[in-house]
Amino acid sequence: MTTRQLPHIVIVGAGFAGLTAAKRLKNAPLRITLVDRNNYHLFQPLLYQVAITGLVPSQIAYPLRTIFRKQKNLTFRMGEVTSINLQEKYVKLNGSVIAYDYLLLAVGGETEFFGMESVREHGFQIKDIESAVATRNHLLQMFEKASRETDAAKRRAMLTFVVVGGGPTGVETSGALAELIAHVMRKEYPELDIREARVILLEAGKALIASYPEELRRATFQLLQKKNVEIRLGARLMEYNGQRVSLGDGTEIRTNTVIWTAGVRAAGITERLGAAAAGSGRVRSEATLQLPDHPEVYVVGDAAYLENGDGQPLPMLSTVAIQQGKAAAENILRAIRGVKQKPFRYKDPGLLATIGRNAAVARIWGLSFSGFVAWLIWVGLHIYRIIGFRNRLVVLINWAWDYFFYDNQVRLITRE
Amino acid sequence: MTTRQLPHIVIVGAGFAGLTAAKRLKNAPLRITLVDRNNYHLFQPLLYQVAITGLVPSQIAYPLRTIFRKQKNLTFRMGEVTSINLQEKYVKLNGSVIAYDYLLLAVGGETEFFGMESVREHGFQIKDIESAVATRNHLLQMFEKASRETDAAKRRAMLTFVVVGGGPTGVETSGALAELIAHVMRKEYPELDIREARVILLEAGKALIASYPEELRRATFQLLQKKNVEIRLGARLMEYNGQRVSLGDGTEIRTNTVIWTAGVRAAGITERLGAAAAGSGRVRSEATLQLPDHPEVYVVGDAAYLENGDGQPLPMLSTVAIQQGKAAAENILRAIRGVKQKPFRYKDPGLLATIGRNAAVARIWGLSFSGFVAWLIWVGLHIYRIIGFRNRLVVLINWAWDYFFYDNQVRLITRE
Repeated sequence: MTTRQLPHIVIVGAGFAGLTAAKRLKNAPLRITLVDRNNYHLFQPLLYQVAITGLVPSQIAYPLRTIFRKQKNLTFRMGEVTSINLQEKYVKLNGSVIAYDYLLLAVGGETEFFGMESVREHGFQIKDIESAVATRNHLLQMFEKASRETDAAKRRAMLTFVVVGGGPTGVETSGALAELIAHVMRKEYPELDIREARVILLEAGKALIASYPEELRRATFQLLQKKNVEIRLGARLMEYNGQRVSLGDGTEIRTNTVIWTAGVRAAGITERLGAAAAGSGRVRSEATLQLPDHPEVYVVGDAAYLENGDGQPLPMLSTVAIQQGKAAAENILRAIRGVKQKPFRYKDPGLLATIGRNAAVARIWGLSFSGFVAWLIWVGLHIYRIIGFRNRLVVLINWAWDYFFYDNQVRLITRE
Repeated sequence: MTTRQLPHIVIVGAGFAGLTAAKRLKNAPLRITLVDRNNYHLFQPLLYQVAITGLVPSQIAYPLRTIFRKQKNLTFRMGEVTSINLQEKYVKLNGSVIAYDYLLLAVGGETEFFGMESVREHGFQIKDIESAVATRNHLLQMFEKASRETDAAKRRAMLTFVVVGGGPTGVETSGALAELIAHVMRKEYPELDIREARVILLEAGKALIASYPEELRRATFQLLQKKNVEIRLGARLMEYNGQRVSLGDGTEIRTNTVIWTAGVRAAGITERLGAAAAGSGRVRSEATLQLPDHPEVYVVGDAAYLENGDGQPLPMLSTVAIQQGKAAAENILRAIRGVKQKPFRYKDPGLLATIGRNAAVARIWGLSFSGFVAWLIWVGLHIYRIIGFRNRLVVLINWAWDYFFYDNQVRLITRE
């Protein structure tokens, strides 16, 4: 049997789901084409660290060609998939057609603004390297501008940082930002009265990290408060014009910075599939991760809508994406061998969120942790998960340094 | 005496000259305002490494506020100086006026295209972080595009990389690029015939690194040839339209990449001084580094034109800038104390250029070195000179890794 005759699988997206599936199929009798619009895999859980100057992009992004250098059955193609033809079984990439026998859609998510164009226009997000670097540049610019601003009201607006969304990203970003101000900016901007700098966390619902157990929600709230993050629950952002945030209760906050972490939806390409969509633009898949009526197409990760045993939709988390990527790869192997497909079951590995430099909350093995112990668990786990030995070492050195010296080296303002 | 009454010195530019002067004045009875359009000092000699994916910006750029955190007599202002009034003694920055008693102009250089608009428009340069990252993104894009291009002529144009200028930067860039192709790209683009990739170094004059001794020029030529760099001496670029380079002798080279390293001139602000200019827009200074008729203004580094004892103009090199920064600071201290100004004398510390991963040429203590020994000298010296302990450590780890594993981690294509 020549290579030409082996079944061809196209994997769209090299996030956690696509990457895991591609690796799982390493020794399979398949030709794999992995497609991504970027030439790297991004370790998204640490992206907020780029925005708050804790890490640089190369520490959390790893070139796909390097990752797959030794996987002979895989070809990488950089580019954006512009259309998918489920009937004729091909995708269009950079204007050319790539036919498939199997298709794995792992296209991931993008920011959901819920139609709020004013936030999309004036706000910042932390969704990819470019938006994280843009956020970093803006935060640092605000301190530079404030340091020479004599109008007190304008200066306070520059030093007021609003983070929207009380999920893990909002909690992690606001906590880390408050620490950056308290420990680093305080020293580097002696011309500023650092007490003018505020971090405000807005959450429309009644609790932070609402999906976490009660004791962790409470610990998170207290830890953030201790770090001087102003938490406003039940606060719904209505409008933001770049100068002023308007809330649902009529309150206004003068600020030049809104970081939006309050919504994720499946990447746009899923809308053009003609497949049944669920909330957040996600594609309804079978329990086997197959697309209904298209057993050769698998949908995984943020793009897929699947319910848990208890009827709850699975969350858009990297842990779900990784497990689904592995499960889809195994079902594809079953399909090739003519064996029955196996339904996907999510095994909850626990919950984890950091709140700044030395505190976190975690729920692992049925136990709740908070504070420094949870932070150590978080550091260990994330460093372990980051791809590539050197990256791990550099991240470790950076963190160890930051931890012992309250220092961050990457406060560079680059121009876009 | 209160702080207000201390003389005020404005240092424009935080390159090697400005940084050295500011540090030298640490304990001086002065108020210092350091101005730069960036919030970091850039270790420019290693910038080409960013362009060829060997280092990331944060490894060679260090935030100025961190460097000067403990220097109480210094204030940093980020911004572009738009005008200088020598008569009234002030500079304009971000629209506001900063008066000075002493002014140190250390504005550095910018790329000189000698009026060739076609190269400015279609070519790449390695002058600041942004242009180096743009060059990196383009180089990597060319490999991605070539990997899916079926037209052989188009593919060869994508894989033909022309470096213009046989000075140290051109030599270092072409050598490092040839090695990246031979050791890394060869493995990461199995779909390409890597022999299609060419690096061409164009030099209009008769020799590479013309200011170096004969034996080093020869060693450089041979080392580059061994790395498969095609060297063309006496080759003058006339025009480049993004697709095709035209040379003075009528030769044409099809290429999508021209990296221009063939010219430096003083930064534009010097032209608006009304001071006597020499070649490359540099300001003629006295031997004491003062501006004629304006003893309170010092000009140093790439912006200054000064002749050596033998009537030769001093080169635009970091070693000159560092020595002049120190000398100007000392003359300013003399001026404050009412002591006679001392003329500047350049002490040649030797010459050094790398040619890829494990070869260099060096002229130190009257001795010429080439090959691996010179490379070790170069590595040691550059790591030592890079500011900040952590940076040094990270650069060292990167280099050690690259050296032992022929690996580069930072081949990320980011979008601008």
